[in-house]
Amino acid sequence: MMDRGHHPIEPWQLRETELDLDKLAQSESLFALSNGHIGLRGNLDEGEPFAIPGTYLNSFYERRPLPYAEAGYGYPESGQTLVDVTNGKLIRLMIDDSPFDVRYGHLHSHERSLDFRTGILQRDAEWTSPGGKRIKVRSRRIVSLTQRAVAAIEYVVEPVDQSARLVLQSELVANETQPKLSADPRVAAVLEQPLEPVSHHHGRDDVVLIHRTRSSEQLMAAGMTHVVEQPGRGDVRVEARQDWARTTVICDLKPGESLRVVKYLAYGWSSLRSENAIGDQVAAALAGAQFCGWDGLLEEQRIFLDDFWDAADVEILGHPELQQAVRFALFHVLQAGARAERRAIPSKGLTGAGYDGHTFWDTEGFVLPVLTYTMPDAAADALRWRHSILGLAKERAAVLGFKGAAFPWRTIRGQECSGYWPAGTAAVHINADIAAAVVRYHAATGDDRFIDEVGLELLVETARLWMSVGHHDRHGRWHLPGVTGPDEYSAVADDNVFTNLMAARNLRAAAEFAARWPVKARALEVNAEEEASWRDAATAVHIPYDEELKVHPQSEGFTGYAEWDFEGSRGKYPLMLHSPYFDLYRKQVVKQADLMLATYWCGNAFTAEEKARNFDYYERLTVRDSSLSACVQAVMAAEVGHLDLAYDYAYEAALIDLRNLHDNTGDGLHMASLGGAWIALVAGFGGLRDGEGGLSFDPALPDGLTDLAFSIRWRGVRLRVEINQQEVTYTVHDGSDASITLRHAGEDITVTADASVTRLIEKRTPLLPRPTQPPGREPMSALGNSRLV
Amino acid sequence: MMDRGHHPIEPWQLRETELDLDKLAQSESLFALSNGHIGLRGNLDEGEPFAIPGTYLNSFYERRPLPYAEAGYGYPESGQTLVDVTNGKLIRLMIDDSPFDVRYGHLHSHERSLDFRTGILQRDAEWTSPGGKRIKVRSRRIVSLTQRAVAAIEYVVEPVDQSARLVLQSELVANETQPKLSADPRVAAVLEQPLEPVSHHHGRDDVVLIHRTRSSEQLMAAGMTHVVEQPGRGDVRVEARQDWARTTVICDLKPGESLRVVKYLAYGWSSLRSENAIGDQVAAALAGAQFCGWDGLLEEQRIFLDDFWDAADVEILGHPELQQAVRFALFHVLQAGARAERRAIPSKGLTGAGYDGHTFWDTEGFVLPVLTYTMPDAAADALRWRHSILGLAKERAAVLGFKGAAFPWRTIRGQECSGYWPAGTAAVHINADIAAAVVRYHAATGDDRFIDEVGLELLVETARLWMSVGHHDRHGRWHLPGVTGPDEYSAVADDNVFTNLMAARNLRAAAEFAARWPVKARALEVNAEEEASWRDAATAVHIPYDEELKVHPQSEGFTGYAEWDFEGSRGKYPLMLHSPYFDLYRKQVVKQADLMLATYWCGNAFTAEEKARNFDYYERLTVRDSSLSACVQAVMAAEVGHLDLAYDYAYEAALIDLRNLHDNTGDGLHMASLGGAWIALVAGFGGLRDGEGGLSFDPALPDGLTDLAFSIRWRGVRLRVEINQQEVTYTVHDGSDASITLRHAGEDITVTADASVTRLIEKRTPLLPRPTQPPGREPMSALGNSRLV
Repeated sequence: MMDRGHHPIEPWQLRETELDLDKLAQSESLFALSNGHIGLRGNLDEGEPFAIPGTYLNSFYERRPLPYAEAGYGYPESGQTLVDVTNGKLIRLMIDDSPFDVRYGHLHSHERSLDFRTGILQRDAEWTSPGGKRIKVRSRRIVSLTQRAVAAIEYVVEPVDQSARLVLQSELVANETQPKLSADPRVAAVLEQPLEPVSHHHGRDDVVLIHRTRSSEQLMAAGMTHVVEQPGRGDVRVEARQDWARTTVICDLKPGESLRVVKYLAYGWSSLRSENAIGDQVAAALAGAQFCGWDGLLEEQRIFLDDFWDAADVEILGHPELQQAVRFALFHVLQAGARAERRAIPSKGLTGAGYDGHTFWDTEGFVLPVLTYTMPDAAADALRWRHSILGLAKERAAVLGFKGAAFPWRTIRGQECSGYWPAGTAAVHINADIAAAVVRYHAATGDDRFIDEVGLELLVETARLWMSVGHHDRHGRWHLPGVTGPDEYSAVADDNVFTNLMAARNLRAAAEFAARWPVKARALEVNAEEEASWRDAATAVHIPYDEELKVHPQSEGFTGYAEWDFEGSRGKYPLMLHSPYFDLYRKQVVKQADLMLATYWCGNAFTAEEKARNFDYYERLTVRDSSLSACVQAVMAAEVGHLDLAYDYAYEAALIDLRNLHDNTGDGLHMASLGGAWIALVAGFGGLRDGEGGLSFDPALPDGLTDLAFSIRWRGVRLRVEINQQEVTYTVHDGSDASITLRHAGEDITVTADASVTRLIEKRTPLLPRPTQPPGREPMSALGNSRLV
Repeated sequence: MMDRGHHPIEPWQLRETELDLDKLAQSESLFALSNGHIGLRGNLDEGEPFAIPGTYLNSFYERRPLPYAEAGYGYPESGQTLVDVTNGKLIRLMIDDSPFDVRYGHLHSHERSLDFRTGILQRDAEWTSPGGKRIKVRSRRIVSLTQRAVAAIEYVVEPVDQSARLVLQSELVANETQPKLSADPRVAAVLEQPLEPVSHHHGRDDVVLIHRTRSSEQLMAAGMTHVVEQPGRGDVRVEARQDWARTTVICDLKPGESLRVVKYLAYGWSSLRSENAIGDQVAAALAGAQFCGWDGLLEEQRIFLDDFWDAADVEILGHPELQQAVRFALFHVLQAGARAERRAIPSKGLTGAGYDGHTFWDTEGFVLPVLTYTMPDAAADALRWRHSILGLAKERAAVLGFKGAAFPWRTIRGQECSGYWPAGTAAVHINADIAAAVVRYHAATGDDRFIDEVGLELLVETARLWMSVGHHDRHGRWHLPGVTGPDEYSAVADDNVFTNLMAARNLRAAAEFAARWPVKARALEVNAEEEASWRDAATAVHIPYDEELKVHPQSEGFTGYAEWDFEGSRGKYPLMLHSPYFDLYRKQVVKQADLMLATYWCGNAFTAEEKARNFDYYERLTVRDSSLSACVQAVMAAEVGHLDLAYDYAYEAALIDLRNLHDNTGDGLHMASLGGAWIALVAGFGGLRDGEGGLSFDPALPDGLTDLAFSIRWRGVRLRVEINQQEVTYTVHDGSDASITLRHAGEDITVTADASVTRLIEKRTPLLPRPTQPPGREPMSALGNSRLV
């Protein structure tokens, strides 16, 4: 899994120089295109061979029953699964009497590249058919970031040395054949034939197929139209049936001549709007795209991306592979969030249906930090989506016997879809994670209207949940028993430090914002007594501490458990596929950063020495079976002075998908880890913190990383941070009177458009030696991989 | 649910004076007949109306998939469900042209009675058909306790005032129609058409149907033959098809004449033997039964039962209903265990398929204590069954990552069938419960051969399990984190006091017995080091204690949790149908005796004051949503001096099924609570303890209970204990040189056949006032119901 395969290291694109059919699933995910509304996996144009076919519309799902061997009160009865919708990517080709299929004939060359600046997935192939005809095919595919409902493909084919008759079939296909998937719980449920045909329409050039999901009763429409350029005589036919539509182009080409087809695709869906409305919407999108034209779409795409990179790029000197990886990461985070527009951002984006296409706390915890500082409107939209499901979250809280709102652990449209409550319902920290994202977004943007419209209500209803989940003991300490923190190898534990600290933050923020928005607070029936109860509970929160070991137990009693038999577990990762939860939960073994995440997000609650000791302690126990871990370990390793180790973790976080480190990139990219690549660099080596105060930095680079530069948006202004081994320079862009006050390594400084500020970086010395990890779970060496070009 | 219905209180039988069609399910369970091998629910002879049809063979099950919304490592993939096998109880009757069906015509009288001394279920009905013909029907049904494969029915019908033509159809029917059941997890999964026909055979008089389960591939045969007595001309026909067989008897009767049919039934099953062997086995059983004859079967049954009652009867003066109830309880415990013969004793016996017909820890915990002292061979057989599945238990332990044997939480044939691990796999205390039953059985019988053949191995393999489940902390204390104790409203908690104490007992017993059986121990590869490690862990076991409250927390941290909102839960019992486990687990609320069971079974670990305080504390928290609770509360209430409260709990334990207190008696009787009725009286008011020393008593009766007398078997001798308000007399039966040494209220006494011993009973004064229970969960008043006759 550690093989880079045929992906050369280049700064602004991901290129694949050979087609490896054994790695199709992975490449389909890596080359996925999306704008947050439409997602197209990087399936080959001709549809076959494929690993997992995928065409997704954000939040377009089917309901399915959730079965239980033994049912329990409050268990969700139905789940939601992202639907593989009508596939519009298909362009099949017949050369004389041979279909273009890379498994037959001879493939001379095959190259694909995803360009992060143009947003184009390009494919170039040269192939000789079993009948001996050699052709060149070039396709370029985009999912428009500016026209939300639109994707487009340019397909060019030419014979190389002999004339040939070409039959090109461009299709829409609903209810594609699905592969058999494994029993791994992280893989999506497979839905057979999820789409019921409603109607199909075709004009002379364009086709629209309309379908409905059986159980969730969502309507969707997919449309296509084509512009065909060919020399001489040709024929174009359009046909449509219930589950497919086909535009057939026939022509004879001589060497030097080419057939060029531009296929415009449009998608729309709704659970409210009528069949006619959806059909018209798609037809309109097609008309708009065609009016804009292929070159127009590319131009818009480029402008959009230039603007993004201008404010979001992270530049690295000293590690070309990491440079490529962080841009790849940012590009996919952008794709996931850009046009989600008040829909959920799933944990795999729209690159695959892993985890059923669900959204978890990953989004608020690992994706929104990136979007907040690079594309804040997308972060606001994601949180407005949370607000849009507040009613469901309040219903869920009531079912559970709680007040306030209990957001679902996993969902597409808002209903709890977790079928295993100890790692679902009990992971109530998701509510504090959402609250923290609200506070962060407001701090970074100053968007008071957002607080008034949605933010305060999110803070208040989550605070109310905490007050009913927690209780005071007879000594007045406030506790949260029986909850599950981020580490999924522990569950239903008492006083999880992360959860307790985050809940306290949530309560304090609710009290503080309610005081600042008194009118809105009154409308939400918050009174001074309730605010006081929030502050009191936050102050009284119990944080377990092991006085003997001088570390914080992740949860009460954790440091007294037996240590996991790491030696005996060599080669048995992820552990959850080899050991029962029963044994995992009762041992000292950590799937993913939990206490370490507490020391990162709630850093003020720990002294520097505590952080160092905690880091040292938990490093030995953390197996990183979750993709949410390496980036957090990178951040804390950097903070406690293990910069080389931080470098390794940053590298791992950034490479999880490019190197398929978790062996499941084929099910979709790990959005949180992609966000985590940015976090590892910006919060790790940049030292960005935004936990409870304002903006602060404390940069330091590991040996070998010469330069790191990044930008963030802060209250409408771009701040650029340029770090090298000796010093850091803070510069403000955008507007002559702009200024940002920030804290650098404990010192308050103000940066203005006129005056950038440079500070020397002090050498960071760790309190303790570099810790070890469980055997076989050491991170890859970033330095050892830094010379690859 | 509190209604006694039409069941008069009588000392030696359960009688129903009117047929209440709304309570059919309950009466089918109450009137179930069984010998531990065959079970016949008390369905009406004519088959309809029915609530739940039921004919069961011990351990004859079908496999079914266990589904999970989110799968996990080590989750059982298939479950086992007791099969409703070929129904041989059916005798239909046509009077002229009206079928005898109590829902039509006019039912003048209908009475059923189950006689605990004869073992006969008798039914007397007088009915006028819609056509105006009045008949009397009397049927008597037995399941033979002496001929394990045999049941028999005597059916007598006579016209009352007019001649009539009678057509009697006696049937065998496989794959009966099943009722739709509820979503309550305690109800069995319904299997549709579980039996595949293999063959059917009929001679002139007898029929055998052979079927096989589809997935578990178990073969079964059911056979019947008849003896018909009729005046004058008649006709008898025998027919058989794949799924049914029918013997038809036709005759004309005048008033005063009667038709009498004796139907002999035989059942057999095997997963090993061939179709022919099974068919022959059933034919042989039929021949044997017929040879014995109806009167012979009744005679054998009476002798068997006389012998049982002679040694097992519990006599009560002062509470006729309790007297009836305890005999009802003993009768059903006898039926469940008598001829189980190295098969599991299910939690419902063979009276219904509730809980899928599974066996839990209930058997060792609540049924075997009764059998050990009243029918020790049956207890030995049950434990030999455990030994027969030791291989599976060792495999299960290996899957879980443990050493030794991990017995299944619920099963029919030995494989773990629990689909919810926090209340299944994690309830590892079942292993210590089995070990305790081994020690108890040996103490009561002195059966050394049992220890050599199976007992020591059970102790050793369970001890090995504990050593791999537990661990020492850095202070040398031995812990069991993350386990579930008896209380199912808590789970996956650390250092459950009950589990820790029972595990320590298990370890001590293994070490002690290994030392006493060194040859066998060596064969099991036990060495002195291993024995020492068991003793050391047992000595070092950590027992949490709340110094402030001066009570033992049920598990670490329990007494710091918020108390359940009992006021808000009025009318919402059982709580598990109204609240999520998430909330239940994190609050102070107790489904069933847990810490209280620890103080009962491991009484030596607590001072009298601790017991009193613990009892007082947990009474306020215990909601008795489990039928395993009241009897334990009775025992501990008596021990701490709340004799009136003990009386109430004893009454509740004894009446759970007769009054349908848990509203699910229809799914089968609660064997553990029936055993618990005996326990409440013998261990509660008799003060029987056998925990870690020899036999001891400490009797005391509540006001209103004038006399209590019971017998137990102790090393082949019957000890009779007669208690009244002032004194207790111990008498030894069986053999002139018999003697028993026991401890009475702290004093060692020896009782011989020549000299009974009488001691005055000291007045017991509780340390604390009578505690309260959660509102609405107070036990019924025993005294208030003691005058019913």
